[in-house]
Amino acid sequence: MNPHPYYNPDLHGAYRLINIGDLDLVCGQTLHDCTLAVATHGRLNDRKDNAVLIPTWYSGTSKIIEDVFIGPGRAIDPDQYFVIVINQIGNGLSSSAHQHAGFPAIDIADDVSAQHRYITQHLGLTRLALVMGGSMGAQQTFEWAVRFPHMVQRMAAIAGTARTSEVNKVLADAIIDGLRVQPPSAGLSQHARLMTLYGLSAAFFEHQHFKPLGFDSVDAFVDGFMKPYFLPMDPGNLTTMLQKWRAADVAHLAGGNVRDALQRITAKALIMPIDQDMIFPPSASQADAEMIEDAVFHVSHSPAGHLALFGIDNDWVQEVDGQLFELLARE
Amino acid sequence: MNPHPYYNPDLHGAYRLINIGDLDLVCGQTLHDCTLAVATHGRLNDRKDNAVLIPTWYSGTSKIIEDVFIGPGRAIDPDQYFVIVINQIGNGLSSSAHQHAGFPAIDIADDVSAQHRYITQHLGLTRLALVMGGSMGAQQTFEWAVRFPHMVQRMAAIAGTARTSEVNKVLADAIIDGLRVQPPSAGLSQHARLMTLYGLSAAFFEHQHFKPLGFDSVDAFVDGFMKPYFLPMDPGNLTTMLQKWRAADVAHLAGGNVRDALQRITAKALIMPIDQDMIFPPSASQADAEMIEDAVFHVSHSPAGHLALFGIDNDWVQEVDGQLFELLARE
Repeated sequence: MNPHPYYNPDLHGAYRLINIGDLDLVCGQTLHDCTLAVATHGRLNDRKDNAVLIPTWYSGTSKIIEDVFIGPGRAIDPDQYFVIVINQIGNGLSSSAHQHAGFPAIDIADDVSAQHRYITQHLGLTRLALVMGGSMGAQQTFEWAVRFPHMVQRMAAIAGTARTSEVNKVLADAIIDGLRVQPPSAGLSQHARLMTLYGLSAAFFEHQHFKPLGFDSVDAFVDGFMKPYFLPMDPGNLTTMLQKWRAADVAHLAGGNVRDALQRITAKALIMPIDQDMIFPPSASQADAEMIEDAVFHVSHSPAGHLALFGIDNDWVQEVDGQLFELLARE
Repeated sequence: MNPHPYYNPDLHGAYRLINIGDLDLVCGQTLHDCTLAVATHGRLNDRKDNAVLIPTWYSGTSKIIEDVFIGPGRAIDPDQYFVIVINQIGNGLSSSAHQHAGFPAIDIADDVSAQHRYITQHLGLTRLALVMGGSMGAQQTFEWAVRFPHMVQRMAAIAGTARTSEVNKVLADAIIDGLRVQPPSAGLSQHARLMTLYGLSAAFFEHQHFKPLGFDSVDAFVDGFMKPYFLPMDPGNLTTMLQKWRAADVAHLAGGNVRDALQRITAKALIMPIDQDMIFPPSASQADAEMIEDAVFHVSHSPAGHLALFGIDNDWVQEVDGQLFELLARE
């Protein structure tokens, strides 16, 4: 099979493809030979107590996780931790729609089941010092902490909630419908616009925070940053992830009651929204935090809004590092 | 000609169709037999000093203006004022794309030129006690007050700015492209979603302000309120208005300098954004107000965001009335 022009290690850094076998999915179908693309940093220590798991967010891969969160001297320091970055199913590096006609619907719970199988059966781990993620990565983090509370010592949910809000379902529907537009480049351009409008913030545009990124105008930012980001992607892969996001609800583990679900969490938790985030406003994260026994709620600051996750605001990246240092020091 | 199933007086209340003749447009073309749909309330007094002009906003008609702003005992009281509501060109009641193939691009300045011709040559007025409008109606209000300062005694710009922001151009582009989707009902449904996402506010959905409107869920609100509102409309008419919105800039009257333009205003001004408005955030209106000599800046409050203009939040409607009473009392 020829390498895909976008979904390959040249663009996304080294990862291993791990076949974890057939995965029975929430939708009732089976994903045969489910393959996880896994990037690791650092080494497992002898006590096997320094593993950090980071699942990826919508449209992202293990590469951006490494760029934004991992490095010597950082909170997530590969000299200290064994960092396991697992690409979510459907993101183009793990099993994805662009590889298979009729790719099934994937649930956040399917990702966590697959990751759990890899973590326990392939790596032989029983504890994770930290599970963390942003956006859909935060949703996987919630699912981990609720489903496997005995394994998750700490959790950090950054700019993501335990269940997808009703209005975010409208946003997901709008983006999904937009991706159906032909030709695919037109749908992906529209997608780039919608993510520009909802992913950033009024302050980002008003105070021209695109200028330090090298763009003279909003149009130049959309054409030079947002479109080039989305245009190489596969609309089917994006749709898999959007439908997964749309359906995400940790309460499925507790008969539909989100409070009952979150009260199962025993991890020391950091719940950290971004103040200007239009997709996941801080109030929704505060409600999550109040239902978790041992949660620190911290509102991080960035005019970049949700897309602060891209690492385009260095102040925000440093603020997150500070919070993660504190979380990792909690015993 | 058969009446259009949506653009007719049965749905939008009584109006007169006034042929003001050929109109030379900003785009260089001529709109032949430019026809304005005009609804009036009350009577001109003998001194001819009680005329109030209200142009319409995007997608709206004279009907919603009447419902939200006009009535006995209200600030805009037809027992006291001669209220002239003029449908903007392209809105389906005045000259519009659904009536003519190859309908030309219309500028806010074209609307104001057409309205001025009607007001001066047909009605014989030289002064307007008040020009007011919401959203694109506010943009026409700014254009009036800058272009004809000697005529405009008072102005109220509600939830609209003197020039369209860069990010709103991205929103306009997204909506315009969405309207090209076939079949038209699919494009209009997508349009309804985008206006749901940007027209309301996070607080509106979080605190379920759709429930007092009779909807049990966000989906029910979108399906039962937003889609039925947009689905009967003509995508070409909406596109005319969107392109007009996209290009709106009062600074065209002053060599591109918005400060020079706004400093021409002699009207007593009320600049009134809505605190939760995601399309026209209050900070942008504050900047406008600071450039106008005699402006009161007041941030009105509604979780309905921009679509408070629809009159779905009675507290906001009353707050606006209070501000308009104060403006009309200013001498």
